[in-house]
Amino acid sequence: MKRPLILVTNDDGIVAPGIRALVEVAVRLGEVVVVAPDSPQSAKGHAITVREPLRLRHVRVFPGIEAWESSGTPVDCVKLARHVVLKGRQIDLCVSGINHGSNASINIIYSGTLSAAMEASLEGIKSIGFSLLDHSFEADFEPSKPWVRRIMEYVLRDDFPAGKLLNVNIPRLPAEQIRGIRVCRQAEARWMEEFVEGRDPQNQPYYWLTGKFINLDPKDDTDIWALENGYISVVPSMHDLTDYLMLKQISFDDEPVTHKDNHNRLAGWP
Amino acid sequence: MKRPLILVTNDDGIVAPGIRALVEVAVRLGEVVVVAPDSPQSAKGHAITVREPLRLRHVRVFPGIEAWESSGTPVDCVKLARHVVLKGRQIDLCVSGINHGSNASINIIYSGTLSAAMEASLEGIKSIGFSLLDHSFEADFEPSKPWVRRIMEYVLRDDFPAGKLLNVNIPRLPAEQIRGIRVCRQAEARWMEEFVEGRDPQNQPYYWLTGKFINLDPKDDTDIWALENGYISVVPSMHDLTDYLMLKQISFDDEPVTHKDNHNRLAGWP
Repeated sequence: MKRPLILVTNDDGIVAPGIRALVEVAVRLGEVVVVAPDSPQSAKGHAITVREPLRLRHVRVFPGIEAWESSGTPVDCVKLARHVVLKGRQIDLCVSGINHGSNASINIIYSGTLSAAMEASLEGIKSIGFSLLDHSFEADFEPSKPWVRRIMEYVLRDDFPAGKLLNVNIPRLPAEQIRGIRVCRQAEARWMEEFVEGRDPQNQPYYWLTGKFINLDPKDDTDIWALENGYISVVPSMHDLTDYLMLKQISFDDEPVTHKDNHNRLAGWP
Repeated sequence: MKRPLILVTNDDGIVAPGIRALVEVAVRLGEVVVVAPDSPQSAKGHAITVREPLRLRHVRVFPGIEAWESSGTPVDCVKLARHVVLKGRQIDLCVSGINHGSNASINIIYSGTLSAAMEASLEGIKSIGFSLLDHSFEADFEPSKPWVRRIMEYVLRDDFPAGKLLNVNIPRLPAEQIRGIRVCRQAEARWMEEFVEGRDPQNQPYYWLTGKFINLDPKDDTDIWALENGYISVVPSMHDLTDYLMLKQISFDDEPVTHKDNHNRLAGWP
């Protein structure tokens, strides 16, 4: 049987220890090609670069493995991988991470790691975003590896449907304390945020975002519950954002609008 | 009755004609505060700025209306509006746009316009992203205005639920040819993309993204169908990305993993 082609990317940059751990697992399962950002790209969401050109360089970072770094966002990296590096070769699996820090709950929306995986899934590629609940650059990824391997093997199976995306978060625990895997839904949560206000060396004001994650969802079927109880959380995720319940509840009247008066230019408008 | 407080933002930048049209409608319906990017921020998705400080300046752009520009992304602008400009005042509605160009179908995922509106909805604020299917900076927003007003009035009603988000796209048609409003789902579509490859003045290679939007969804209940048939599309959208169908279909075995061998460091690893 042909070995599967596995694309590896991340948002912490190509030299982050997390992507190295992911490559170490992936090479056991298939042919690996890495295309990752040349600098940290956390919280870039699904940003793509349209107003400027991108750079792409072949680099030697992982022994014996083809690797490229790009000036773009994580989503740009997936697009460059498909169109420039792999030139239309069929990618059997895209894995992104292992992120240094949680992407559970609504963090999926802000996450470059998960957005890269979602970009692959939009193109019909099986994909997984992996994150460890440890922001430290020197985080220990060893306890994660056998679980990452189990989940990758599951997704590589022929009966796992094309174009599906899993958001996998791993608790920060010693190997023997990880209790297993829970398939669950995205918890309803939010960030309690504020801006640190300061003055720069030119005495100009600046605002720097900071915040604390708050779970609002007490149920036991969520990713946050799983992680707080020693489990690895797996949330199957999708790109159809339609709110189907709401869809049935709203309607607009069919009267034509008037195109005269009341939203003309403002008085005093330049 | 107290006039509603309406936050206006966009992703094309505070001087774009589209946001001006939106302000012209919003001032008829409530107290308006504008917080928008100081430069174009298209395709920034749900990116936020965490690695550097943000700038925020009070500017006179709209006569008689409080307006601020920020160095941040559209999502940053919503966060700054809530925490710095409005300091916790209750925002009754957040409107983003009017975008110069479509945000129908999967474009919602890439769109700074819609991500700003989604950020407000995450915080429990009613929100709407408006887009006109005309990329031109000099697009004619006049035919859109009465429809924008009708939809804003609908969402401002007390019986419209808090924290809900509408993705509104408007066809590029003369006023008399717009046939009305369709509430619909997000079409399944994708971008057929390529990179234009070139050499910069230093003879270094670059890659510049370009692409064409392809609708894969032939049904008549989608936003793309509505727009192609002369209707304004309204897609109620949400931030829970859980794939609930898939959730029921996957499970992992409960066997413990082994933590020995086969995903150790690679030979020759530095």
